[in-house]
Amino acid sequence: MRADHTSMPLPEDAPGGLPFFAAGISLVIHPRNPHAPTAHANYRYFEITDPAASDSPTNVLAWWFGGGADLTPSYLYPADATHFHQTYKTACDAFSADLYPSLKTWCDEYFYISHRKETRGVGGIFFDDLHQGQHQRLTENRPREQADVFAFVQSLGAAFVPAYVPILSQRANMVYTPLQRRWQLIRRGRYVEFNLVHDRGTKFGLMTPGARVESILMSLPEIARWEYMSDMGEDALSEEGKLMEVLRNPRQWV
Amino acid sequence: MRADHTSMPLPEDAPGGLPFFAAGISLVIHPRNPHAPTAHANYRYFEITDPAASDSPTNVLAWWFGGGADLTPSYLYPADATHFHQTYKTACDAFSADLYPSLKTWCDEYFYISHRKETRGVGGIFFDDLHQGQHQRLTENRPREQADVFAFVQSLGAAFVPAYVPILSQRANMVYTPLQRRWQLIRRGRYVEFNLVHDRGTKFGLMTPGARVESILMSLPEIARWEYMSDMGEDALSEEGKLMEVLRNPRQWV
Repeated sequence: MRADHTSMPLPEDAPGGLPFFAAGISLVIHPRNPHAPTAHANYRYFEITDPAASDSPTNVLAWWFGGGADLTPSYLYPADATHFHQTYKTACDAFSADLYPSLKTWCDEYFYISHRKETRGVGGIFFDDLHQGQHQRLTENRPREQADVFAFVQSLGAAFVPAYVPILSQRANMVYTPLQRRWQLIRRGRYVEFNLVHDRGTKFGLMTPGARVESILMSLPEIARWEYMSDMGEDALSEEGKLMEVLRNPRQWV
Repeated sequence: MRADHTSMPLPEDAPGGLPFFAAGISLVIHPRNPHAPTAHANYRYFEITDPAASDSPTNVLAWWFGGGADLTPSYLYPADATHFHQTYKTACDAFSADLYPSLKTWCDEYFYISHRKETRGVGGIFFDDLHQGQHQRLTENRPREQADVFAFVQSLGAAFVPAYVPILSQRANMVYTPLQRRWQLIRRGRYVEFNLVHDRGTKFGLMTPGARVESILMSLPEIARWEYMSDMGEDALSEEGKLMEVLRNPRQWV
């Protein structure tokens, strides 16, 4: 983390820690209908301040934004994945053509369930440590000033409704079978596995004394299912298998 | 871990690791009926050998047994908890009166969902690093020789059926309501949280390249449920609240 924020003092220079400010917003929707994908968005801001200059307006030692949005279908509708990605690509491209390709790849890497060798869903965008300095994964052709980065993050926030609601409207009332519901619940088991085993925010949150557990775990689905050695999804020609193929081999959607 | 097995070489003395043998058996039963408790038992054996003496029968550098059994009800029947604990106490007492009290406390400590401030269930017994040398948690009044420790572990294995099956027989056909099923599924969500966030065996297993994920995650329930800010269990006088009381304040059952 500090590698990304070299203006921060080293731990030995601030043994008692440093004052900080953190703000974030998270959104997770798990629709009942198996044809309607789960959607997630999260945007966050961190700021570390100098305790020796607490009344100065220039006392910020380091600041950064993080966040992203991703789509997790149980049944693959390629047009939905393309629409979701295209909406975020358009929002990114207004700031820099370099952003979407990097943030798309980062999303596929982050939401990877390593013990299953599959991604959580069809991805979207993900980023962290967005600040004015050099960035380990991003080119310099991006918003750098704090106001510009905030405008970029606001723009991504505003993209969620046009990215997701048209998909939800189209899928939420489709007819579905008990078998499709069963598959959806198995996929939600994988969502639980990712969030509890791999997600950094969840893991850090649960280890924090006094953390508000209900807020941290609001990302979990209402119901999840596990089947020992389930054969659902193993037939590559089935609708379930078509989803698995793109989770095992992330695709360029736009 | 090495603190418990001082005969093992230090990592710097064996940079390539050491040959090992591991064997274990795990059993988890999640009954459908909310009045019938979940039961879990696991016994395991590890052995580390000296690569320089691979054809010697005395090439074992360190060996130890671990294991235990615990009960996780959704509805509290104190007589069930007492029967389960009494069965394991009797099995332990045949080897040493010092064992059950230590293994009971260890179980309550191990199966603790720290982020919820509650135990997973009403406990049972738990132990690790049982070998011939000094033990950090156990007195010397216990089986020490390898054959004696194995006999003790076999005796605990044999105690599972008399500890659990009478409870299952009595509860498996009780009438239950949709609300009781809902509560059972919420409790199973907590079981998932413990296993994926806290359980050492699960965490190590999932991080091991090439691990058999289906075996590791067979402990998860068929269905689990999460409710944001659920009020179930909050009324201390309700049947759900009576369970919560003993999960928050582990009890001596025998």
